[in-house]
Amino acid sequence: MRLVRLEEELREETGAWGAPGTTLGFVPTMGALHRGHISLVQRARVECDRVVVSVFVNPTQFGPGEDLQRYPRNLERDCGLLESEGADLVFAPEPGTIYPEGFSTFVEVAGLTSGLCGASRPGHFRGVTTVCCVLFRMIEPDRSYFGEKDFQQLVVVRRMVSDLRLGTEIVACPTVREPDGLAMSSRNSYLSPEERRQAPLIHRGLSRAAEAAREGCTDLDEVKGCFMETVSEGGLLSVSYLEAVDPSTLESRSLSEGRPLRLLTAVYAGKTRLIDNVELVPPASLRRSRC
Amino acid sequence: MRLVRLEEELREETGAWGAPGTTLGFVPTMGALHRGHISLVQRARVECDRVVVSVFVNPTQFGPGEDLQRYPRNLERDCGLLESEGADLVFAPEPGTIYPEGFSTFVEVAGLTSGLCGASRPGHFRGVTTVCCVLFRMIEPDRSYFGEKDFQQLVVVRRMVSDLRLGTEIVACPTVREPDGLAMSSRNSYLSPEERRQAPLIHRGLSRAAEAAREGCTDLDEVKGCFMETVSEGGLLSVSYLEAVDPSTLESRSLSEGRPLRLLTAVYAGKTRLIDNVELVPPASLRRSRC
Repeated sequence: MRLVRLEEELREETGAWGAPGTTLGFVPTMGALHRGHISLVQRARVECDRVVVSVFVNPTQFGPGEDLQRYPRNLERDCGLLESEGADLVFAPEPGTIYPEGFSTFVEVAGLTSGLCGASRPGHFRGVTTVCCVLFRMIEPDRSYFGEKDFQQLVVVRRMVSDLRLGTEIVACPTVREPDGLAMSSRNSYLSPEERRQAPLIHRGLSRAAEAAREGCTDLDEVKGCFMETVSEGGLLSVSYLEAVDPSTLESRSLSEGRPLRLLTAVYAGKTRLIDNVELVPPASLRRSRC
Repeated sequence: MRLVRLEEELREETGAWGAPGTTLGFVPTMGALHRGHISLVQRARVECDRVVVSVFVNPTQFGPGEDLQRYPRNLERDCGLLESEGADLVFAPEPGTIYPEGFSTFVEVAGLTSGLCGASRPGHFRGVTTVCCVLFRMIEPDRSYFGEKDFQQLVVVRRMVSDLRLGTEIVACPTVREPDGLAMSSRNSYLSPEERRQAPLIHRGLSRAAEAAREGCTDLDEVKGCFMETVSEGGLLSVSYLEAVDPSTLESRSLSEGRPLRLLTAVYAGKTRLIDNVELVPPASLRRSRC
């Protein structure tokens, strides 16, 4: 496995793989790798001839008061993990490599980014789409792997790739969880022991909401109530948003239409913002039930 | 020469040119072709193995009160001209081909687009960079040809291509003029006979300003005065802006630094907005002179 820092080195490496038909899989990360990231690398390893992983804490997707400075970084450990998973190349650029002096172009997806996480993190998705666009152009992957934990990001990036004809297939991979259900996240390391004990209530609440929908409850207030009730059991958790949306357009929808929705939430555990989501699948024959 | 309307047809045609080393030149246009466009096609024809011309009146670069509806369209005539210039392929998509349902991504260059034409045409450059990004991705040209008449556009598109690593070389071509100096523009067809008679004063004024700078005048007010005086000879011309800027950053600069500047203007002839520009080159040894 090679570790490269510069765009030219990256292009030199990937250019040498250019035999026709060679497929390139790409996993963009901000490092501080956990089993969620690793599952993306493994999927890429199975599906593609070559696997590139980027490790870049992208400054443009952090807002002014956010955790850019303290975001966990450990490139050496990350490279060890990636080597053992059979990645071919790690691209770990400096900010000035991605954004050279004078850089002033931004890629923005309207609509999809205005609600949910976008509402409380202005500019966040603009930073995500811009860096993804640049990385896709540098690496030119056939497939790029994203986790469903960041569901809005997945939908937004997919939209950008389609609109701008960036020519990489966006592969969505299931959220990987701790044994107690907490979604894997590099930010879990911020949690105090007590916050960590309460954090699994997020997944538990989402699961209960999904169960209510599966059992035929079409009243979204009731379905959401299952989540809110569960989360309120932890005194340290405070819900930033909870919304049931169309999984493609992220528009609010009713369960009574009978189509699957996605229930997305962001929850503060103390000062740490955690996100998670679940599919809501109404039964074929809709009926009301308790949660 | 082939005329195609759909993205798939376009890709089929250009895909069949894929022999290694084949260079593809691209001339994006809004149709209503004049000798300015033709000069771009000729340059592409000389420098590239294959030449693609797009004819697309891009709705997203027109503001609400602008001339989208009445913008001149004549695809049949355009194709005749392009065929005789040896273009290989004309891509004339419908708006829904470039912007399919649900399209919501925008590419924006900050800073460079805030002044000059950007100040009076909000959203214009966002429309230009978005459509150029999409077309560059669809066509994947080695070189793309732009006229210097739209100088700000040239600088903005070059910045986008560099920032997003779009991988096409932006080739700047000199403005082509009518015998009386008026810069070729599809919008010249809007001019009344009297406006048309006065319009060459724009180029004449710019030339006089350039002459003053060449003769060593470093007082920009004086240099601009040469232009304003000339243009005021036509009672129907009204200056929207006149600015001397660094040709790369579009930032205001002084002539006394001794570096070449670009003097850009937009002038209304009646209701028709005309733009033009000229290079200001101070002499090696700076001295003051009258214009």
